Amino acid sequence: MVNKPSSFRKMMETSSLNRKTRVVLALDISTRLPKENRGNARGDLLERALFTLEQTNEHIAALKINHQLLLPLGLYDLMQEIISKAKSSSLPVIMDCKANDVEHTNRWIARHYFDAGFDAIIANPFVGWEGGIQPLMSEAREQGKGVILLAYMSHPGATEGYGQQVLPTNSTKPQPQYLLFAQKAVKWGADGVVVGATYPDKIREINDVTEGKVPIYSPGIGAQGGDISEAFRAGCKYAIVGRAIFESEDPGKSARDTKDKINKALKELK
Amino acid sequence: MVNKPSSFRKMMETSSLNRKTRVVLALDISTRLPKENRGNARGDLLERALFTLEQTNEHIAALKINHQLLLPLGLYDLMQEIISKAKSSSLPVIMDCKANDVEHTNRWIARHYFDAGFDAIIANPFVGWEGGIQPLMSEAREQGKGVILLAYMSHPGATEGYGQQVLPTNSTKPQPQYLLFAQKAVKWGADGVVVGATYPDKIREINDVTEGKVPIYSPGIGAQGGDISEAFRAGCKYAIVGRAIFESEDPGKSARDTKDKINKALKELK
Repeated sequence: MVNKPSSFRKMMETSSLNRKTRVVLALDISTRLPKENRGNARGDLLERALFTLEQTNEHIAALKINHQLLLPLGLYDLMQEIISKAKSSSLPVIMDCKANDVEHTNRWIARHYFDAGFDAIIANPFVGWEGGIQPLMSEAREQGKGVILLAYMSHPGATEGYGQQVLPTNSTKPQPQYLLFAQKAVKWGADGVVVGATYPDKIREINDVTEGKVPIYSPGIGAQGGDISEAFRAGCKYAIVGRAIFESEDPGKSARDTKDKINKALKELK
Repeated sequence: MVNKPSSFRKMMETSSLNRKTRVVLALDISTRLPKENRGNARGDLLERALFTLEQTNEHIAALKINHQLLLPLGLYDLMQEIISKAKSSSLPVIMDCKANDVEHTNRWIARHYFDAGFDAIIANPFVGWEGGIQPLMSEAREQGKGVILLAYMSHPGATEGYGQQVLPTNSTKPQPQYLLFAQKAVKWGADGVVVGATYPDKIREINDVTEGKVPIYSPGIGAQGGDISEAFRAGCKYAIVGRAIFESEDPGKSARDTKDKINKALKELK
């Protein structure tokens, strides 16, 4: 695995530098689509998504989409309007599909998201390399796209899997799962790792293992109680922020405030 | 967790008994959707999916959908035609989304798939209970739907994660990850576990841990080299079959042959 920065990684750096922000907006809004009112409910959801993107656009480095917005809008249907809007201002778009499937399914997952305009996808390294991450990575490299791997999530149950002690093959010394994932992220040439901002110590440990070579994306700031300065001091590169922005009465102001707070914290680090 | 059979589990048993088959069809066909020809490519894909379902319908106990068909068709768009066709002959429909997200995202994933007509979803227990599987399960129980958990996959990289040795909390005795998943499937009241048919020994071990109380779904028969009799002898309840059926020149005949082969193996077991 040649570990040279992908075009996605460069795209992220350029976007972040040009816009002077480390915020990745998680546009995690959704709505049920009752059969009798499907068209209207969908139209309203799209409108709200586009409005939030418009208001926050200049304060964010990238846009992250997850299933709650994708499933009601449809990848090749209304989601196309959101991707187009992001692309028109050179904003990278990441699909947080947490891919953990095998062989041809993983290849098709990557292919469809990339074909539809996404610049990177998020995947779970638990699935392993051969017939797991390998087909995703191969499809990404063919299309000049990115793959970001999960390392430690921000919910309470994360201790069960991400936090468990594993006996690596040919070793009697147990290691935490998340550090094994960090080692794999380096070995496999991942374009980023996701580490919950609620665990700054783990951000630091993972950053040590990757020798700072794999950009760290941290969700959990704001709504889930993670502290911004702590996370960036520990080595986080991009903060993934959702509810604190899109649930705010003024998403533009909230995005700008989050951006400013991070930039202030980064200045104090120097 | 009260471990009583969900309405989905009963639905599977009824379907399997009535149709005298243990085959779950994995309708994993896909196609790229080039911008200039999106409508036609989509229409062709839908037609092929409906044709395969029609040909195989009487020989299968359930239909399993994955992302390669979902993403191009759209959950609330053309996928609705496939779900309606299955429902019109009381065929249960399973979404193999391998959900491994957190909190509100997992809840929305479950909500959208169930709202759109799916009877069960597949999830990865690696995400843990609190804020992981819990919201999926709670949404499933509210809607009378099912949750099936992964235990061991059928690809080579499965040894890395599913096959790894884990030190459980409060224990110095390492255990294989897949057996910990099997224990959790019982504890959490899962409606099934997925175990690759390429590993009959693991089917047997998992069936021992669950004391046969959690139905085992096994992919990997046919195209991936798993042996049908071996898998059922080891405790598999439903065989997930994809390519061996839908890539055949006569999908109906292939489905019937697979069904017959399994029924013959089951007879010999008695």
